[in-house]
Amino acid sequence: MQIGLIGLGRMGGNMRDRLRAAGHDVIGYDPRPEVTDVDSLTALAAALTAPRVVWVMVPSGEATRSTIRALADVLEDGDLVIDGGNSRYTDDRPNAALLGEHGIGFLDVGVSGGVWGKENGYGLMVGGSRENVERTMPIFDALRPEGPREEGFAHAGPVGAGHFAKMVHNGVEYGLMQAYAEGFELLSAAELVTNVPAVLQAWSRGTVVRSWLLDLLVLALQDDPTLAKLDDYVEDSGEGRWTIEEAITHAVPLPVIAAALFARFESRQDSSPAMRAVAALRQQFGGHAVKHAVGPSGTPGDIAGPSSGTGSTQG
Amino acid sequence: MQIGLIGLGRMGGNMRDRLRAAGHDVIGYDPRPEVTDVDSLTALAAALTAPRVVWVMVPSGEATRSTIRALADVLEDGDLVIDGGNSRYTDDRPNAALLGEHGIGFLDVGVSGGVWGKENGYGLMVGGSRENVERTMPIFDALRPEGPREEGFAHAGPVGAGHFAKMVHNGVEYGLMQAYAEGFELLSAAELVTNVPAVLQAWSRGTVVRSWLLDLLVLALQDDPTLAKLDDYVEDSGEGRWTIEEAITHAVPLPVIAAALFARFESRQDSSPAMRAVAALRQQFGGHAVKHAVGPSGTPGDIAGPSSGTGSTQG
Amino acid sequence: MQIGLIGLGRMGGNMRDRLRAAGHDVIGYDPRPEVTDVDSLTALAAALTAPRVVWVMVPSGEATRSTIRALADVLEDGDLVIDGGNSRYTDDRPNAALLGEHGIGFLDVGVSGGVWGKENGYGLMVGGSRENVERTMPIFDALRPEGPREEGFAHAGPVGAGHFAKMVHNGVEYGLMQAYAEGFELLSAAELVTNVPAVLQAWSRGTVVRSWLLDLLVLALQDDPTLAKLDDYVEDSGEGRWTIEEAITHAVPLPVIAAALFARFESRQDSSPAMRAVAALRQQFGGHAVKHAVGPSGTPGDIAGPSSGTGSTQG
Amino acid sequence: MQIGLIGLGRMGGNMRDRLRAAGHDVIGYDPRPEVTDVDSLTALAAALTAPRVVWVMVPSGEATRSTIRALADVLEDGDLVIDGGNSRYTDDRPNAALLGEHGIGFLDVGVSGGVWGKENGYGLMVGGSRENVERTMPIFDALRPEGPREEGFAHAGPVGAGHFAKMVHNGVEYGLMQAYAEGFELLSAAELVTNVPAVLQAWSRGTVVRSWLLDLLVLALQDDPTLAKLDDYVEDSGEGRWTIEEAITHAVPLPVIAAALFARFESRQDSSPAMRAVAALRQQFGGHAVKHAVGPSGTPGDIAGPSSGTGSTQG
Repeated sequence: MQIGLIGLGRMGGNMRDRLRAAGHDVIGYDPRPEVTDVDSLTALAAALTAPRVVWVMVPSGEATRSTIRALADVLEDGDLVIDGGNSRYTDDRPNAALLGEHGIGFLDVGVSGGVWGKENGYGLMVGGSRENVERTMPIFDALRPEGPREEGFAHAGPVGAGHFAKMVHNGVEYGLMQAYAEGFELLSAAELVTNVPAVLQAWSRGTVVRSWLLDLLVLALQDDPTLAKLDDYVEDSGEGRWTIEEAITHAVPLPVIAAALFARFESRQDSSPAMRAVAALRQQFGGHAVKHAVGPSGTPGDIAGPSSGTGSTQG
Repeated sequence: MQIGLIGLGRMGGNMRDRLRAAGHDVIGYDPRPEVTDVDSLTALAAALTAPRVVWVMVPSGEATRSTIRALADVLEDGDLVIDGGNSRYTDDRPNAALLGEHGIGFLDVGVSGGVWGKENGYGLMVGGSRENVERTMPIFDALRPEGPREEGFAHAGPVGAGHFAKMVHNGVEYGLMQAYAEGFELLSAAELVTNVPAVLQAWSRGTVVRSWLLDLLVLALQDDPTLAKLDDYVEDSGEGRWTIEEAITHAVPLPVIAAALFARFESRQDSSPAMRAVAALRQQFGGHAVKHAVGPSGTPGDIAGPSSGTGSTQG
Repeated sequence: MQIGLIGLGRMGGNMRDRLRAAGHDVIGYDPRPEVTDVDSLTALAAALTAPRVVWVMVPSGEATRSTIRALADVLEDGDLVIDGGNSRYTDDRPNAALLGEHGIGFLDVGVSGGVWGKENGYGLMVGGSRENVERTMPIFDALRPEGPREEGFAHAGPVGAGHFAKMVHNGVEYGLMQAYAEGFELLSAAELVTNVPAVLQAWSRGTVVRSWLLDLLVLALQDDPTLAKLDDYVEDSGEGRWTIEEAITHAVPLPVIAAALFARFESRQDSSPAMRAVAALRQQFGGHAVKHAVGPSGTPGDIAGPSSGTGSTQG
Repeated sequence: MQIGLIGLGRMGGNMRDRLRAAGHDVIGYDPRPEVTDVDSLTALAAALTAPRVVWVMVPSGEATRSTIRALADVLEDGDLVIDGGNSRYTDDRPNAALLGEHGIGFLDVGVSGGVWGKENGYGLMVGGSRENVERTMPIFDALRPEGPREEGFAHAGPVGAGHFAKMVHNGVEYGLMQAYAEGFELLSAAELVTNVPAVLQAWSRGTVVRSWLLDLLVLALQDDPTLAKLDDYVEDSGEGRWTIEEAITHAVPLPVIAAALFARFESRQDSSPAMRAVAALRQQFGGHAVKHAVGPSGTPGDIAGPSSGTGSTQG
């Protein structure tokens, strides 16, 4: 079937390729002339035969919201817009309402699979009406992995449910990644295991912890067995934060996902104000040695404390 | 090749089947007459041709240690003992030393795969000398999954490294399970997603969170879509505890694995003394309503507090 | 000085008493006839001499917002409204703006001290203009504890800063309470310490952990040495949740405060869906015994699992 | 009364002063000639009138154990040894048994108060027999703070109970410190509160969170309002680790104390292997930008990633 696709970056570009490979007629729009098929959203609307289906694959937040607003102007009654980006689910109902005023339908789709989706297919979680879902099923079938439809696709519920499910997916993902990462660190810290990458690779088949994320970690370790080439700075794209906020709203305890999120926050701090406060407290009550911050001269901080002796008794 | 196998429970029995299906000559011993091949350890030793290989697959701790001691008596110089149970890695060197006094070799093997291993094969992590590992490789090759050897088998290091790797594997497993569980709970708590099992099933292929544990959760939800038939009481077999203890020894932060372990501890408490203390504090400083414990009559605890009114300002 | 006080519950009523004891002229309003001094907000405004100062001490959220709206109507240019309740700090700027349209000033005040404040005084954190703070200083001086002003009072910053500081105060409070509670539980669990209340009381002076919360816990244990009379159900009033949400906004890791909040969420669950999911996974991969949920007949859940035997090797 | 005191460091030296100020006859021994009263343990034993009481105040672990062994030789039947250091409680029974073979009694005492104890008195938790406790009560009364005995002293239970209680005390202390530290960080991160030290000082009286640790934090902020002079590196003296290990033994969930301990571990890492693993995973599945580690030239790590574009959808 014919589909417009807005946003031809890492994800959108790959999806265009996968959809075309499946025989669909994809007209892509992107502000970058070297990748776009048409010059403008207006040109995209003109190039598509009504009733149109347009898939939006741009960064979440204002970029998506402004794209939706623009589409409300260039599309018309009977068309359908799909937001396949990582929008917060709370954006979906307003977006759907705005489009609905023009008779334009809306689906929100959580898409998982990263850069590997082009080849493997993408896991899809969809929110919206049954009618709109069925109308777009050929596209979903082309994007999802080979195999039974229900193993790579779900109609999760009404508008918002697709992005909600994707948000939770990413929250779970944080927890999974951190669990493997902690295991990697402990294996590395103990000197008993002499070949950490080999152990992780041996977990690839048969074990309880086998997974695609594990496969990726094994891959990463092939190039860099201790990951020494990488900085330990880890960004977050927002969905983990939303997951915790949603958990708080529903009074759901998420200790593991929260710990994984906080570990990322910590990874980005050059100096933790909290831990400076703990150091200050220890110095106050126990006369414990503390490190002074590195001076402007770049000399490493020295250890300062009271004249040592036997017998400190505080923690 | 020929191998003795001690312990024919869920794991050992399945392993005997898998080894025999691969053409190996397995002589099993178990105290239960209905499953054993021989009547005693002495009979087992007699039935095996020297130099013997004996795989021990009994509960960790004293059961394993006493089996090793017994084997030190009935085996002889040149034989080899493999501990494939879930022994704490700190048991391995003493066990190896004891056997070594009699010229008997030792390997420790972490085995993962649960009841599915009979069919899928088991992930194997081995500690010990290269010579002993090579001698037993036909057995390992039969037990591990199909595919490249390194994806289901690793020689992790010297004696102890196999069980150490398995301990960390299980710690990671705790974190993974808890991450999926938290996602399941949040999806269930929000009313937006109308079909939680379908969403989890849709994560099975293509997504970043796909894994074997996810497949098992999908399976469990097919019978019991809200898991209402289950109690929320979760045991632990000890390896998660050892993982945290090892992390403490090495000053490795494991917030996710520790949170997963503590969640299990909490799941087993009828009443948390800590949370009673928090309730007591709230009552003390704020006159907050608290619940009284259920009386012996079984009547539910009532809410008690000072006469209500506007304007409490404490947390 | 003269002040109107809206809300005469646990906190407001005590504050009226403390202010009057300090010689201030307090006119209180509360919908409950038995405690109020005037019949309505209009009557309150009429009874106060302009320029008026009115302290609002009602539950946060809509109750406070609607009171502010009503005051915007009955007060006039030059008056001052103080929100001393537990409003979320994000309410303060809108409330200040609404009142500002009528020429009415605004201060937000975080008040800590609970039911003990009447006697001990209240810790106060204030947000707003220096001018408005100075105007109200006699009230603050009467409410705060004896001693140096800066040890029970702070002008924290502009509008919103008072409630922000109080929100963080309550977040810290969650962490402190949970820390003592965990210590109480561990002391109780080990049989070595034969007199847990005596140990906690011995921490009251001289130790590093001495605090007012500890004093309250000691008090609670005098009546109920194991806290057996209490249920372990712990409510939260919202400020801990806001603290975590704010931390997420600023990418600040708060592992301890989050853990304390989640412990409260867990305390309120009869059955944890997450832990049922973990139980389900253990049953799936390892054939581990699980407990079935209690049936409608009230019979306790039985332990069900595969026929037992030696040698399970999963966590 | 007369007492021998071994170890005249920060704690022991102060305790000698406090005991002498209370009129006790203290004979101190320390290997440092400039502080010691006698030249050797033998000289100490000779200088004390039998039956002797000797207080050991040296670093925990081997230093304490070897001192106990030496005392077993130089003391005699009817004497009493008190271990007031921070020994792990599991050392107490063996130490008591060793001394008991010579007819020498034993008490273990947890001492809290840090460098302030000289002036304020020390909180004391004691393990051992009632008879030995009563014999030493004049010493305990001199060391503990003014006020009711039970507010600074507890006979916690049999041998080991004193150090067990002190271990838990320190675990609680970790949680308390981290709670304040997190609050300090969040107050500092948000720009709304313009005077963070003033807010913390305002918590000193009247509030729910007032405590001695808070007073110390206020003190530390007077010199260094943002604690910028300090490094965020925080040591631990072992008791927090033992607390978690003990919790694991008793299946007691300690999420807050564990989080506080792990925060210290993290504070000491220049680069977290776990977070490098998370970064590696994000790069693998999403083509996310990562930072490369700082090169030997000291140039900061650059951000590397695939050519950017719209539409990444992973976390």
